[in-house]
Amino acid sequence: MWLQREIVLEPRRRGFHLVTDEVRGALPELAGVEVGLCHLFIRHTSASLTLNENASPDVRRDFGAWFDRAVPEDFAWTHTLEGPDDMPAHIKASLLGPALSLPVSDGRLALGTWQGVYLCEHRDHGGPRSLLATLWGE
Amino acid sequence: MWLQREIVLEPRRRGFHLVTDEVRGALPELAGVEVGLCHLFIRHTSASLTLNENASPDVRRDFGAWFDRAVPEDFAWTHTLEGPDDMPAHIKASLLGPALSLPVSDGRLALGTWQGVYLCEHRDHGGPRSLLATLWGE
Amino acid sequence: MWLQREIVLEPRRRGFHLVTDEVRGALPELAGVEVGLCHLFIRHTSASLTLNENASPDVRRDFGAWFDRAVPEDFAWTHTLEGPDDMPAHIKASLLGPALSLPVSDGRLALGTWQGVYLCEHRDHGGPRSLLATLWGE
Repeated sequence: MWLQREIVLEPRRRGFHLVTDEVRGALPELAGVEVGLCHLFIRHTSASLTLNENASPDVRRDFGAWFDRAVPEDFAWTHTLEGPDDMPAHIKASLLGPALSLPVSDGRLALGTWQGVYLCEHRDHGGPRSLLATLWGE
Repeated sequence: MWLQREIVLEPRRRGFHLVTDEVRGALPELAGVEVGLCHLFIRHTSASLTLNENASPDVRRDFGAWFDRAVPEDFAWTHTLEGPDDMPAHIKASLLGPALSLPVSDGRLALGTWQGVYLCEHRDHGGPRSLLATLWGE
Repeated sequence: MWLQREIVLEPRRRGFHLVTDEVRGALPELAGVEVGLCHLFIRHTSASLTLNENASPDVRRDFGAWFDRAVPEDFAWTHTLEGPDDMPAHIKASLLGPALSLPVSDGRLALGTWQGVYLCEHRDHGGPRSLLATLWGE
């Protein structure tokens, strides 16, 4: 079976946000897949997706602090037309990547106990973010 | 349907290069896929693939500047046999990753408006680069 | 065909470890796939998978040195409950990513000559690591 569906995530402030339940809730067809894959793809170049610790808000805050330090606004950027948060957002987006491929087993995302899906919003005012989810398997 | 094809990208200088049209042109069979995935895989360890802003050459130049600063040639590398650009190239390749999985919808790559495929060439003289493209869907 | 199987990797010390043969050995069914994909997924948030140079141990040592410098234990982390190596491990895990999608051709992983699968162990005492391998194709 193949399924493809857009999932629109509401605007969020700059930072790292847990969206596992939102993604799962938008894909009730997961229940019908015994073995397969779920591909989540963000259609933007200044936000990204990653998988990380799903329990402690501290972890997500520390992600923000480290990425802001590693890819600072204060750098010799030449592409500055869209604001100081724009070019760092592009770099961060590629470091973390635009897609996640998640295995599906027995009707569920086969994540580890501590794994959750993060929306990584790298802009100050990024607006709503569009994910394209593709689910296939048997 | 399944299709697998090698795409050879001509040698490019160190930096970030937009290759979306080249990849699309090499895969006319995309037109026959209603829903599916296109997997692009680079068979090298000192070049990589990413998705980012497809309009401004400034952005690609800034990618080069940031990555050269973050992973400098001047570091306590032990693996120096293949030249000062080699070890940084390996690290950059893993930070950005060797593969892209792109959703296919209605006969096209379902990229966002601003998303383009970058060949990330991390060596000074990397030579031609071999991609293995795999396309499957229905 | 679809196959899904857990592969348990034995505990390894912090660092980068070549596990290509171990992964291949656990998936003899690769031989029956003419064209397809093999998805490797690590079910942890403080270890990751990447693809890089499969010959020189120097390269893997240099990976360790660079990542320890780029994501240091000595940083203004707020999530410190699980030890000084924990929060850097989470960041490194997301920089490198939890999954690899590898093309399969003529019954083999279609890796480049120099590409090998690295288990990236970011904790001092990470314990055994569980991979979920999913193989599909025709």
